[in-house]
Amino acid sequence: MENLPWDWDKPKEYCGVFGVYGHERAAQLTYLGIYALQHRGQESAGIAVSDGKHMCFHRGMGLVNDVFNEKIIDKLPGYMSSGHVRYSTTGSSNVANAQPFVVQYAKGALTIAHNGNLINAAKIKGELEKEGAIFQSSMDSEVIVHLIARSRKEKLEDAVVEALKIVKGSYSLIIMNENKMIVARDPHGFRPLCLGKLNNAYIISSETCALDLIEAKFEREIAPGELLVIDSNGLKSTNPFQPIQHSHCVFEYIYFARPDSTVFGQNVHLVRKALGKALARESKVSADMVIGIPDSGQSAALGYSEESRLPFDYGLIRNHYVGRTFIQPTQILRNVGVGIKLNPVKEVLRGKRIVLIDDSLVRGTTSRKIVKFLREAGTKEIHFRVSSPPIKHPCFYGIDTPFQKDLIASNHEIESIRQYINVESLRYLSIEGMLKATGPKAHNFCLACFDGNYPVKPDNDTNCHTIEKEELIRELTEEQLEL
Amino acid sequence: MENLPWDWDKPKEYCGVFGVYGHERAAQLTYLGIYALQHRGQESAGIAVSDGKHMCFHRGMGLVNDVFNEKIIDKLPGYMSSGHVRYSTTGSSNVANAQPFVVQYAKGALTIAHNGNLINAAKIKGELEKEGAIFQSSMDSEVIVHLIARSRKEKLEDAVVEALKIVKGSYSLIIMNENKMIVARDPHGFRPLCLGKLNNAYIISSETCALDLIEAKFEREIAPGELLVIDSNGLKSTNPFQPIQHSHCVFEYIYFARPDSTVFGQNVHLVRKALGKALARESKVSADMVIGIPDSGQSAALGYSEESRLPFDYGLIRNHYVGRTFIQPTQILRNVGVGIKLNPVKEVLRGKRIVLIDDSLVRGTTSRKIVKFLREAGTKEIHFRVSSPPIKHPCFYGIDTPFQKDLIASNHEIESIRQYINVESLRYLSIEGMLKATGPKAHNFCLACFDGNYPVKPDNDTNCHTIEKEELIRELTEEQLEL
Amino acid sequence: MENLPWDWDKPKEYCGVFGVYGHERAAQLTYLGIYALQHRGQESAGIAVSDGKHMCFHRGMGLVNDVFNEKIIDKLPGYMSSGHVRYSTTGSSNVANAQPFVVQYAKGALTIAHNGNLINAAKIKGELEKEGAIFQSSMDSEVIVHLIARSRKEKLEDAVVEALKIVKGSYSLIIMNENKMIVARDPHGFRPLCLGKLNNAYIISSETCALDLIEAKFEREIAPGELLVIDSNGLKSTNPFQPIQHSHCVFEYIYFARPDSTVFGQNVHLVRKALGKALARESKVSADMVIGIPDSGQSAALGYSEESRLPFDYGLIRNHYVGRTFIQPTQILRNVGVGIKLNPVKEVLRGKRIVLIDDSLVRGTTSRKIVKFLREAGTKEIHFRVSSPPIKHPCFYGIDTPFQKDLIASNHEIESIRQYINVESLRYLSIEGMLKATGPKAHNFCLACFDGNYPVKPDNDTNCHTIEKEELIRELTEEQLEL
Amino acid sequence: MENLPWDWDKPKEYCGVFGVYGHERAAQLTYLGIYALQHRGQESAGIAVSDGKHMCFHRGMGLVNDVFNEKIIDKLPGYMSSGHVRYSTTGSSNVANAQPFVVQYAKGALTIAHNGNLINAAKIKGELEKEGAIFQSSMDSEVIVHLIARSRKEKLEDAVVEALKIVKGSYSLIIMNENKMIVARDPHGFRPLCLGKLNNAYIISSETCALDLIEAKFEREIAPGELLVIDSNGLKSTNPFQPIQHSHCVFEYIYFARPDSTVFGQNVHLVRKALGKALARESKVSADMVIGIPDSGQSAALGYSEESRLPFDYGLIRNHYVGRTFIQPTQILRNVGVGIKLNPVKEVLRGKRIVLIDDSLVRGTTSRKIVKFLREAGTKEIHFRVSSPPIKHPCFYGIDTPFQKDLIASNHEIESIRQYINVESLRYLSIEGMLKATGPKAHNFCLACFDGNYPVKPDNDTNCHTIEKEELIRELTEEQLEL
Repeated sequence: MENLPWDWDKPKEYCGVFGVYGHERAAQLTYLGIYALQHRGQESAGIAVSDGKHMCFHRGMGLVNDVFNEKIIDKLPGYMSSGHVRYSTTGSSNVANAQPFVVQYAKGALTIAHNGNLINAAKIKGELEKEGAIFQSSMDSEVIVHLIARSRKEKLEDAVVEALKIVKGSYSLIIMNENKMIVARDPHGFRPLCLGKLNNAYIISSETCALDLIEAKFEREIAPGELLVIDSNGLKSTNPFQPIQHSHCVFEYIYFARPDSTVFGQNVHLVRKALGKALARESKVSADMVIGIPDSGQSAALGYSEESRLPFDYGLIRNHYVGRTFIQPTQILRNVGVGIKLNPVKEVLRGKRIVLIDDSLVRGTTSRKIVKFLREAGTKEIHFRVSSPPIKHPCFYGIDTPFQKDLIASNHEIESIRQYINVESLRYLSIEGMLKATGPKAHNFCLACFDGNYPVKPDNDTNCHTIEKEELIRELTEEQLEL
Repeated sequence: MENLPWDWDKPKEYCGVFGVYGHERAAQLTYLGIYALQHRGQESAGIAVSDGKHMCFHRGMGLVNDVFNEKIIDKLPGYMSSGHVRYSTTGSSNVANAQPFVVQYAKGALTIAHNGNLINAAKIKGELEKEGAIFQSSMDSEVIVHLIARSRKEKLEDAVVEALKIVKGSYSLIIMNENKMIVARDPHGFRPLCLGKLNNAYIISSETCALDLIEAKFEREIAPGELLVIDSNGLKSTNPFQPIQHSHCVFEYIYFARPDSTVFGQNVHLVRKALGKALARESKVSADMVIGIPDSGQSAALGYSEESRLPFDYGLIRNHYVGRTFIQPTQILRNVGVGIKLNPVKEVLRGKRIVLIDDSLVRGTTSRKIVKFLREAGTKEIHFRVSSPPIKHPCFYGIDTPFQKDLIASNHEIESIRQYINVESLRYLSIEGMLKATGPKAHNFCLACFDGNYPVKPDNDTNCHTIEKEELIRELTEEQLEL
Repeated sequence: MENLPWDWDKPKEYCGVFGVYGHERAAQLTYLGIYALQHRGQESAGIAVSDGKHMCFHRGMGLVNDVFNEKIIDKLPGYMSSGHVRYSTTGSSNVANAQPFVVQYAKGALTIAHNGNLINAAKIKGELEKEGAIFQSSMDSEVIVHLIARSRKEKLEDAVVEALKIVKGSYSLIIMNENKMIVARDPHGFRPLCLGKLNNAYIISSETCALDLIEAKFEREIAPGELLVIDSNGLKSTNPFQPIQHSHCVFEYIYFARPDSTVFGQNVHLVRKALGKALARESKVSADMVIGIPDSGQSAALGYSEESRLPFDYGLIRNHYVGRTFIQPTQILRNVGVGIKLNPVKEVLRGKRIVLIDDSLVRGTTSRKIVKFLREAGTKEIHFRVSSPPIKHPCFYGIDTPFQKDLIASNHEIESIRQYINVESLRYLSIEGMLKATGPKAHNFCLACFDGNYPVKPDNDTNCHTIEKEELIRELTEEQLEL
Repeated sequence: MENLPWDWDKPKEYCGVFGVYGHERAAQLTYLGIYALQHRGQESAGIAVSDGKHMCFHRGMGLVNDVFNEKIIDKLPGYMSSGHVRYSTTGSSNVANAQPFVVQYAKGALTIAHNGNLINAAKIKGELEKEGAIFQSSMDSEVIVHLIARSRKEKLEDAVVEALKIVKGSYSLIIMNENKMIVARDPHGFRPLCLGKLNNAYIISSETCALDLIEAKFEREIAPGELLVIDSNGLKSTNPFQPIQHSHCVFEYIYFARPDSTVFGQNVHLVRKALGKALARESKVSADMVIGIPDSGQSAALGYSEESRLPFDYGLIRNHYVGRTFIQPTQILRNVGVGIKLNPVKEVLRGKRIVLIDDSLVRGTTSRKIVKFLREAGTKEIHFRVSSPPIKHPCFYGIDTPFQKDLIASNHEIESIRQYINVESLRYLSIEGMLKATGPKAHNFCLACFDGNYPVKPDNDTNCHTIEKEELIRELTEEQLEL
């Protein structure tokens, strides 16, 4: 079996969060919400609800639809709810690390759903453990829970603020006790988070696409550094943290967010088309047609086609029946790993000079395979165009990029990458071109993966890619039990 | 739970078949082959193999990847194999009706994988039962098996010919005993069937896309009325049936076949683009852009855009995480059934006049929902264009169309359909336009669903839509057991 | 994993049957009935019901409680029902061989539940196949179904009689169509079958213990050669077959039947005590106590104790948590296979001379292990006593004994068996002693396994132990799918 | 569905523990060990292993054989291991409450397997939570883990002693870190715990029967108040607690322990026989035979028979196929709940005067049903004899008795109980008779359930029966997910 994630060789988003306050069918709405956010995490899913007195939750490994069904949703009663989808790095792929994370502590029940990454979690965890704390998971988010449990503050919102002032990094999070929801976004605003309303209910979501699905009205983005308290008195907004220069993740535009979402104030598909147009302006080439690599390269390809006046066509068609796993008989077949997912239309490609558009290029391994594949289908010339700049540095704020040594652009000149993926020409979009295309608030983006300027420095460069210490205990996973 | 098939309100293909003779990893190749043919049937899947002495098989309800995994494939040893994917009408959705159908009879083992529909199966079945025959399934294909078992012919190929001379209708089929494979396509050539080679192994497939996946060489289509015998002496082609006017199913081009397949001599994506161009020529309209309904309308939309010079854009984006079932909380949400699968890009659509392209229009119910959905996203004008003629008659040759009364074009004028789906204008492609676009061999197509001229008359108009008689026995299905 | 059947190294009963006619909760009663008959077959279970128009059924591998639950039972509506538990020889252990066997044929639905074995089934099957018949299973019982389907008789009972006149061997069977139940017992009366009533409903059962559980009134045994027709006109008894000397299976008393059942006119526990008393009279020995091997040896041990005046004690206690499979770490432990099930009470056994009672001795392998085990627990002397005569011949009438070469008494003198199982003395009950203990109708028993006098001669001595021909087709079993 | 536990209406043991130090197949041995201890807890099972560096564990709901299979055992590598079976009161029946409980804390990995009950756990938990501790389960045992985590002691054994000096109640427990095993038994010695050796490996077990199964040598009981440290330096015994009067649970003899175990210095079956003899001496009656209620009443019945000279017979036979759940069609049948498990042998009972022996009588409800059942089978007179004194008080030391109000002997005179269960006569064993039968160390037993003298007073009489506070969070259980 080979895992076939959403797209090979792309950075991975860690998580998506969704919350509902004030709707009698909170679990149903949350199910739909995380269904719409599925692209932000495919490894585990979970929903926690409260009826004002008791919390009930279910989490599991797999897609939202693997984890939930109608009967399960019906067993989650309550008017407030938070949901979570998660992708995680290898090594901690078990249900103990699924969210929402739910505990019972001195003051009652507490749940947290977190999108982002805390860069000083390991240090805090070590200190708490020395005092006798026992952690249940290897998630950085659990640190926030312990800090809340130790706080002497009476009100949950005050304890949350106290805890968040200790942690550093990125977070868009939803915390609930039995009858109150606290929503917070870190002062840098790394990850998106927005507020909607469905009749009288408040809806929280990582992206607007989830609001659209449940036909909720988009109210506004939750501001960086904003903290919402939602309870029977309604919604109260506060700004308890020191204001700071914003650092939105530009990769939400390039690859992560769904094209129909509005993120950081603009529609994602239109930004991607603009990136494609900018790319066309920067790196024209004589060719017969523009082909996007499905699905993430299609918006930029359309933009490139419009700007360059080269016709757009489907030279690679995505197979919609590809599941998450696939039996790869490597002994007998070479290209099947790519071919199972992308189907070249030989009659379109044969003898043609194509501009091939992808949104980003990480390791280069998959791109190389696709190129080989297209050549075998008869393509004459391939001019590879990437609608983002070269990725040279790892991310510490909630995205899973490979270690720096595996980022092809970190170690190779463009010409050497061109030779590796074996195309007639290769061009990336420039940082300037990208910022121009993303609109007027260009100074508000985190460009660390491109230029290495990290808005928040991790404590220790060598091990900052993961906050986990060695796991000494291991429960057999469901997968192990079945093998 | 609501089932979300490949596309709502589209005709359904009954089946796809795939076979391998002469490869030591026949089951692995067949797994890949039916994986590539998944679009032809999503209800059940099966593989039967033979090592020359014993046959081994596995079938199950669900997608190929639900039914098979690496361990199961490894338990299917042999150098010859046939595989099948199936969609069936309601009422017989159980594993007894999955194929390949495998029996042991007086002369040994026998398996059949069949794509098509026999219009006189019910009659033959009745006669055989009167003589004491006991049927295991409600599939028309089992009739062929019983006819073979009753034949006095010594050789399997002779018994098959004897049986096929009795049945009427459409069939692309693969029959195997322990050491011989018989491949046959009905004289009308309703369904496609092609021959490939992988080194020395013979490969049989409903469509060429499956040959591409396993990197087999496409040899040729198997001709209407052709019967192949493949055994240790190699491949022998015969034409045992009376030649007859060909009647290829034009819907394979319009909707069924995969865009990267070559069917009836032409690439499907290119034919669809040609249909879109023809549609643009026939029914131009002043608009801001062309939007295809994913995924089947995209090729025609691209053709329409090229011919009309109206820009093509993504106004509806398909959600790739939609599973086969989905919890629809109908009590609280109206459009979620459409919205879970198609995501409108409001920023693209708002205030725009669009040409909306779909490949076909059956009941009109889904189109109506999509239109409503697009209007709510702010679309100003919607000009609906269908890249095929109005469907007015049911199909008896292996496609599941609704009963005539449910075919909207069978009972309504175009203007009344336009009002029902609520668009500014509605145009279908003409039959002539369609035939011109499908190329020079236009006289070889079955147009019965458009014009009612059936190449083979069903015995009895009223019950010919299904060949099944009432089922008196019912085994509890896996689904029932779990509910 | 090692299978731990009901008891190691014992003959195996093939089946138990149970039927209900005229009760609105027929499926529930049948579930209870086959639950009570579980000891007659632990490999598969099934229930078929009819509401007068349609038949519905469910069958599965495993114990009754593995196969059925409340929800499944609730999905089996009808006023008539038949149920079956089965043990089968290796090679055909799959759900296709579970019963009731249900088919749809020219005259409607038909189901059969059969306890017994047809010795000429292979021959008849071959003849039917030559005429084109296709069999679905490798069960001898399917032969009866095909013979019924081919009968020209209008009435089901007449077709059944016609079919049963062709087959030879043992059968206690329940046949149903949509609205009629036919019950038949072979003229030899090999297997038990009885009739009960629960209010107005007729109940059929292999043993009376199932009547007791559902609180039905025992009416009478169904006579050898009797055929009942039960339908809306009530119950009609006929005797369509030639009367013949009865041949009741004496092993039903010795080992198979449940101790609380009344079989062939006597209570089983009391017959077993009588066998134990007879054994004590025949082979007295000086010892400290009588120990029965649980559970089947306990009744006889109690009889031996009463007759011999030696105290009865629990020196071996059965572990009631032993499941059907068990992980045997053979690398590290020797006796665990016995020890997991039988727990010696060392404080009872230490230094004692015991009379160890078992009901029968087949291969001797398990007895040898138990003896070794008892010696390690400190037993001083072991005098093994068997409450039945030496088994020297295989059974062809529905019991699974090993091949003759594996029957220890077939090839060894008693002294050599004694040495093999390593006891101070070994005695069997004599045939005469056994017949005296089983009561006045001693001449009505089949003693073939003891004396080789077969009431119905099998066609061919060499292969008659199984009626199956080689299976050329094999469907992957659920177990294989999970491994 | 109705749960059919080991025996209805009996007190329930909470747990059994088993440990291995110094064997390369520690998990396999532990699997066998908890298999043998299955009678001490049927709700959940678990095993944790350590290879000296990492701990690996698996726990699940159900019987040992439901939770483990060979493949799972093979995935648990290590030379030290602890296992646990658990029965729990309703309300906390979920896998989070299964043991061994395993955590990672500041000093590494830690696991605990506990048999017993801490009467001051709720109080300690409340104090720890106030300081910010977060508990994962509602088990009292987790309190010990938190106390260890907070200890400043460097050595695990010192931290354990510090923790155990704080808790009050009963405990036989096995604690492990990555390379050390600590075994402790509370100073009262409520629950049994013994030490064995298998070659060089140390074996710990609640009962000796588990040593027998793996063929380990019984070394000795672990003394009340003893604490063992087992590591690479071998085994070291200490007695860190204040010596105190022993209070062995006499119910281990009466009902819990397996008859082949040696507990508190004597074989359980022989003690039970002695109790039966004492009972016969105290309450003779004129009758035809002695019948024990299977299985727990059989040993005492045999003793009663020997002493009274009344013959012992099997009038009630246990059905060995009874699973853990059972569909009870209460609408149609009255006695099936008893009848599915106990089968009366009418031919033995009819017209007879019997002495019916049971080991204990708690609520009386089941006894009443069995008596009714026996009468319907024709029994003429029933003289009920109980081989233990009347239970009048709840247990706080690890046994689940009903609340005091449900203990029939707590609220009713014997005559009134006799009338309720409807027997000709009823007698209990006297406390004096019981103590005489249990041997010379009679003063070492806890008799609280009979006389209300609690060796350790619970903090608060009203809620002491459970140490849990209200659970505010609830994860959907596997069972809920499947319903």
